[in-house]
Amino acid sequence: MHTEPLLLTPGPLTTSAQTKRAMLRDWGSWDVDFNQLTADIGAYLLACANATETHVCVPMQGSGTFAVEATLGTLIAPTSKTLVLSNGAYGQRMETILQYLQRPTVVLPSDGVQLPSSADIEHCLRTHPDIAQVAVVHCETSSGMLNPLEEIAALAARYQKHLIIDSMSAFGAVPIDAQKLPFAALVSSANKCFEGVPGFGFVLVERQLLSASAGQSHSLAMDLYDQWQYMQRTGQWRFTPPTHVVAAFHTALEQHRAEGGVPARHARYARNRDRLVEGLRQQGFATLLSDAWLSPIITTFLSPTDPRFTFSQFYALIKAQGFLIYPGKLTTQETFRIGHIGQLHDADIDRLLTVVASALDTMGITQVTQNTPISA
Amino acid sequence: MHTEPLLLTPGPLTTSAQTKRAMLRDWGSWDVDFNQLTADIGAYLLACANATETHVCVPMQGSGTFAVEATLGTLIAPTSKTLVLSNGAYGQRMETILQYLQRPTVVLPSDGVQLPSSADIEHCLRTHPDIAQVAVVHCETSSGMLNPLEEIAALAARYQKHLIIDSMSAFGAVPIDAQKLPFAALVSSANKCFEGVPGFGFVLVERQLLSASAGQSHSLAMDLYDQWQYMQRTGQWRFTPPTHVVAAFHTALEQHRAEGGVPARHARYARNRDRLVEGLRQQGFATLLSDAWLSPIITTFLSPTDPRFTFSQFYALIKAQGFLIYPGKLTTQETFRIGHIGQLHDADIDRLLTVVASALDTMGITQVTQNTPISA
Repeated sequence: MHTEPLLLTPGPLTTSAQTKRAMLRDWGSWDVDFNQLTADIGAYLLACANATETHVCVPMQGSGTFAVEATLGTLIAPTSKTLVLSNGAYGQRMETILQYLQRPTVVLPSDGVQLPSSADIEHCLRTHPDIAQVAVVHCETSSGMLNPLEEIAALAARYQKHLIIDSMSAFGAVPIDAQKLPFAALVSSANKCFEGVPGFGFVLVERQLLSASAGQSHSLAMDLYDQWQYMQRTGQWRFTPPTHVVAAFHTALEQHRAEGGVPARHARYARNRDRLVEGLRQQGFATLLSDAWLSPIITTFLSPTDPRFTFSQFYALIKAQGFLIYPGKLTTQETFRIGHIGQLHDADIDRLLTVVASALDTMGITQVTQNTPISA
Repeated sequence: MHTEPLLLTPGPLTTSAQTKRAMLRDWGSWDVDFNQLTADIGAYLLACANATETHVCVPMQGSGTFAVEATLGTLIAPTSKTLVLSNGAYGQRMETILQYLQRPTVVLPSDGVQLPSSADIEHCLRTHPDIAQVAVVHCETSSGMLNPLEEIAALAARYQKHLIIDSMSAFGAVPIDAQKLPFAALVSSANKCFEGVPGFGFVLVERQLLSASAGQSHSLAMDLYDQWQYMQRTGQWRFTPPTHVVAAFHTALEQHRAEGGVPARHARYARNRDRLVEGLRQQGFATLLSDAWLSPIITTFLSPTDPRFTFSQFYALIKAQGFLIYPGKLTTQETFRIGHIGQLHDADIDRLLTVVASALDTMGITQVTQNTPISA
């Protein structure tokens, strides 16, 4: 048994001891030694997306949502219209941000799990020729669905729309190539598939587009253009960075590289998922989504219908054995979620399967009968 | 000699080993164990300002500037007018934020070091009866000046204006009592006098005022009202907090309490300053400000006029001996700054004095002749 629980959550997640130990030093936030960390991080992230020639990497203090808001606020002109493709909490969050910013928005209705069809998206782009941006979430962790980004990028390219991707929980483990899948901006965060600790996000953004975005931001602190300009000039973050978190991320990226980069991380996370899903299906659980839509990030399982099942007791029993799982985030179905990213390996998944079986036993649940899954 | 440099900068600063070691654990950001850390932190900070009955504490992800912008954006209604008392970079930053937010602002001219006089402030408040807020920086670290907050608070109270204090670099070491010095909001940050690591700020804000601020924020991520409401309802931060940084801050506050709270920290920092100023004066240096205006946070020294003196060489020589100092931030005079907050004690100051003398020696500067100081 671990002395602290493993986090089966889609970030914050369990990081390596080496990553955490990188925080045992205080850094001067404008000293050249620290600037080098920042520069290394940007270069590596751009290389991971094959975006070095076309994009720049701009970090942003705060949680991932701060980086998303900074991106939308800086890149989208006040009267410019955005199509938001939303199939969960994080798509809705982009809608909410655009409402705060009073930017015109078109939202295609979704069933809350699946994206609108390509045909519906194309129809929308035709009937709203003034749409300038399409915004979409890469992996919607509220359901666990990996959205069909290639299809959407192809449509955006065909209709010459800027594509803004919230790839918070996918970048680092789901391959993406900026030269094959053109995007205007891709937003992600330190504490997801690169396995850093939380404290900042970052944006890979087309150099030309960002160059044309001066003066558009609604916010001083989240002005992505200003952050970029200042960093180009000085090598420093514009306002105090979370120095220890940045140092941890630098170390986490070295480990990402050593593991074999994006393909290797994808393979490990997919293996975690397959082992977990197979094991829980053997115990009678069903996944919310059919196999084709399962992401390597997090999986949603339907809760047992047995009235003796309560999530809070299930959570507590599993926590007592050293794992933190995640509640569901759907309004339509009783579900729970298990993340499979972070420093998790075969033995951890196997132990979790035993712990889940034991929790059901303690709750007196012998058969995991469930509602019919929404097979997306 | 230390293996890593001591930071003589006004945050990030040198923290204790114990504080850094608190980051060696990953926390689930919505687990009850983590919520308890957040609750403890808020309670302690309110108690430090004797504000428990009247104010609430709301943390905000990002650097201190994010917390300042969140405060101004959330508390100030769109057409409400603000008087900004500015005598340095951080006062100017509040002006800039209010420009971004398109909020009406009155700025009293300053010489860049001293605040406008009480008479000028009072005259301004009389001629602009529609001013609803007065915003001021507590300790202006660009010069090192501790502003006369009591005077300003008395004026704000007499004219019934809301007082918004940027106490980023002072709170925790400069005593403040909300019942004797009424304020609407006081903004500070984890990585200053409480000696945490950077990653979030916080605001002590009048409960009634915040309650009346729904729907005013220009930003989703920095909506202080929403952050408060969500936290009251769930005990959690609205978006992912910098969990390791929060855990470190919790530990740092325990050490703050154990040291004797605000009075003890004030005493240690003032002692550091006195030792430093006396030692450097003996070497021929002069402070920018006269003694009455020196803060216990950071002190600005005039650079030697000897043409052999360059800040970059001075900085490098001192860094090689294990200290990071800070460049000046004034346009009118060549200066440098030395912070005396963080885990610094007598022996560190004494060693620094030796290192400075040795650096001058290496540079061939035998006499530190200087321009006439601005005696504020």
